[in-house]
Amino acid sequence: MFKYPAGKMKQIPLPTISRLCRLYSLIEEFEVEEKKTVSSTELGERLGVASHNIRKDITYIGETGIVGAGYEISRLRKNLDDTFRLDREVKTCIIGLNDLGTAIINGKNILAENYEIVAGFDSSINRIETIRTEVPVFPSYEIETVIKRMNIDFAIITASGHDAQKSLDRLIDGGIRGIINFSPTFLSSERGDVYIRNIDIIGEFRYLMALVHLEQ
Amino acid sequence: MFKYPAGKMKQIPLPTISRLCRLYSLIEEFEVEEKKTVSSTELGERLGVASHNIRKDITYIGETGIVGAGYEISRLRKNLDDTFRLDREVKTCIIGLNDLGTAIINGKNILAENYEIVAGFDSSINRIETIRTEVPVFPSYEIETVIKRMNIDFAIITASGHDAQKSLDRLIDGGIRGIINFSPTFLSSERGDVYIRNIDIIGEFRYLMALVHLEQ
Repeated sequence: MFKYPAGKMKQIPLPTISRLCRLYSLIEEFEVEEKKTVSSTELGERLGVASHNIRKDITYIGETGIVGAGYEISRLRKNLDDTFRLDREVKTCIIGLNDLGTAIINGKNILAENYEIVAGFDSSINRIETIRTEVPVFPSYEIETVIKRMNIDFAIITASGHDAQKSLDRLIDGGIRGIINFSPTFLSSERGDVYIRNIDIIGEFRYLMALVHLEQ
Repeated sequence: MFKYPAGKMKQIPLPTISRLCRLYSLIEEFEVEEKKTVSSTELGERLGVASHNIRKDITYIGETGIVGAGYEISRLRKNLDDTFRLDREVKTCIIGLNDLGTAIINGKNILAENYEIVAGFDSSINRIETIRTEVPVFPSYEIETVIKRMNIDFAIITASGHDAQKSLDRLIDGGIRGIINFSPTFLSSERGDVYIRNIDIIGEFRYLMALVHLEQ
């Protein structure tokens, strides 16, 4: 399903890409702390993975190791940017203007730094007319045309399951490449060029509740 | 690490508990749709798991199957409530009053329905003094005493890594039982009675960005 462009780079396993993206967040914290170098032991602890795993992961993004002093943090960031272009701006839209959707559309950088939310959608005309936001909002049936017109790359789905499923086809037809789905309905696509991450935050919260209750 | 009270119920595997908690969110959607019964095939599709897994999972929460017509949705919910007490109210606090923390503290039900946010904490006195919210806010060094005084059960960490790590010990000393950690620094506890879920949303967003970039 996942294709790499021929000859562009050696294949990077998906779990490595995932860990390296989490490493990027840590690097930003190190920069705030004005830290210059970091060992693989500390990286492992902060990421919750074995240090030999993260050492192996880092070999995929080029030369960054300095014997004895650990990794140079500025160089780790540069190599990650060169490999994955994590520093680029992406145009994003929100599907579902409920409480969570409204918080994201009006919050500043609450999910990531380099996305710009350029449109919101909801199936309820009443919500479209009453929401207070400076971002342009549209009815859900316009998803495909608006995405094409505005060249939107990513979508964040906060709609409930029924609307989430209906929106998925429209998003894909519009050319969306990446989707974060916060609805409880698991979404997937058979197309190899559309990437979806399912995050059920309420489910995670309930999982904690269940564990605490069972152990009481 | 995970203990069940002797004789209280048969042991339920952790992945089963996790799936049943996600099932609970689906049930709420079915109730909005006024659906009465559901098949294991549909449950499997909506949850993104094999239907025989979810059938097996449901055997842990008692009698709910009706041959031919699928599961009765109201009974699924009742059995889940009886088993896990997912319907109870939990007092929650927010650690870190940045953009995400402020959105959660002021948003209504954006992460779950049955938590009540009763306190917010930040290490910056400036933030404590300038934040606009009706929820009482305190400096981080008061975490332990406030949690004990207000009987707070759960914490949502939105602080950045350095503050997240420092807060963890205070939360545990205060008696917190469940933590959702949105900071990029992985948090864990060696105590068997404290449960932590790490969710790096920005990392997930970057993972999508990396996949889209590599495939272009």
